[in-house]
Amino acid sequence: MTPDVEGAPYDPELMAAVADLGEALRGLVDASVRTTVPPSELRDVAAVVRTARERLAVRTRPATRLSELDDPVTFRRVYNPVNGVGSALAPPVHFRSASDDGEDGTVVAEASFGPAYEGPPGFLHGGMSGLVMDQALGAAAIRAGLWGMTARLELDYRRPVPLDTPVVLRAAVAGSAGRKAVVTGTIALASAPGTPLVEARGLFVLPREELRAAYFAEITDASGRHASPSRPTDATAPSGARA
Amino acid sequence: MTPDVEGAPYDPELMAAVADLGEALRGLVDASVRTTVPPSELRDVAAVVRTARERLAVRTRPATRLSELDDPVTFRRVYNPVNGVGSALAPPVHFRSASDDGEDGTVVAEASFGPAYEGPPGFLHGGMSGLVMDQALGAAAIRAGLWGMTARLELDYRRPVPLDTPVVLRAAVAGSAGRKAVVTGTIALASAPGTPLVEARGLFVLPREELRAAYFAEITDASGRHASPSRPTDATAPSGARA
Repeated sequence: MTPDVEGAPYDPELMAAVADLGEALRGLVDASVRTTVPPSELRDVAAVVRTARERLAVRTRPATRLSELDDPVTFRRVYNPVNGVGSALAPPVHFRSASDDGEDGTVVAEASFGPAYEGPPGFLHGGMSGLVMDQALGAAAIRAGLWGMTARLELDYRRPVPLDTPVVLRAAVAGSAGRKAVVTGTIALASAPGTPLVEARGLFVLPREELRAAYFAEITDASGRHASPSRPTDATAPSGARA
Repeated sequence: MTPDVEGAPYDPELMAAVADLGEALRGLVDASVRTTVPPSELRDVAAVVRTARERLAVRTRPATRLSELDDPVTFRRVYNPVNGVGSALAPPVHFRSASDDGEDGTVVAEASFGPAYEGPPGFLHGGMSGLVMDQALGAAAIRAGLWGMTARLELDYRRPVPLDTPVVLRAAVAGSAGRKAVVTGTIALASAPGTPLVEARGLFVLPREELRAAYFAEITDASGRHASPSRPTDATAPSGARA
């Protein structure tokens, strides 16, 4: 079980099937960018893809209802576009606590980005660095029991991030007060982890209760129960969530 | 023809096929997140998806070779993860000049983000706002003839961006000097375009020639000719690229 699937119990058969489809989709997305097959073959594959879509579309959930595999208490989100096991968009990046490496409070992940994530030729899209670092910083906040929504995100790009190359993402809470947390992090080559290519700093704020109630008024879990995200209390904090 | 496919001549049959597959893939990605079909059906669809992948993977280009549909002079990139017609990851967001609306130098786009782009329940992932705004700011710089790579990106999140809701993205160059350009932009509800949900500010820098030569040394176009991105000269500037 990866750190992304901790939390409340779930149907293991469904989780495995969602992860299997997610992996297959990520492979298809990658191949769709690298391929040079002729137009007629692209058209035929598009027809196959539309058939697959129709099979999935016969039964759907409303956007306000979480997947039955999601757990709002531990922030397990299987379709998260950065780390979701079922997401076709996710590189994916699986964050784990770096405490085993002697770095309490740091989250870390290895990743490699294919050409589907390209910005300048041969390099990761600058906005993709922002996307994965927002997730990294947020994951560090959640691990420290400090969930909040992104209020400000700053990124400094020191050097471009090459495609198809192992990189390492790190993030740790730099400070917190009341409903706010400041988190910093980096992207570096796995072969040169001490030289940041990208530096990120995020301010995360837990919305006031009345605002949270308004934002998430219609959100329910799969059983129809209201499910608003919040900071874990001591009673609900997942094992390992607090550094 | 959209603003994203202007530039050098291309094979229209291939462009149409790539766009067709891109559209089909975006539909499949969306359905894969909304679906509630049982595990056995997810597994069957995953098998179909893997077959599609294999058909595309029989012939591929190296990551250093641009797609034959790409044009490095006008920055036409068909697999760009924000606006690429062939990208499964792209929402997609198609930027156009707002000069027809009387706003010279502003680029604008309408978009609607489905649950594949979700962060907090019901809302756009904060990092996704960063991704699309990096592209919006970069597009405004390119339109002004000021291409550069992202050096710094700042995002202020005023309110969350709801899913499945029309939003409008805007960006314009705020200032430039030498190799640097500062660009600002916003995301707002289409129904309330004057109230920004997200404000973005980017610093874009054209790398010095020797650095550009090093970064893009191995990049070629589909014919094998070296193709390094740069700012368009007056001779190569695409029609409409300069505000």
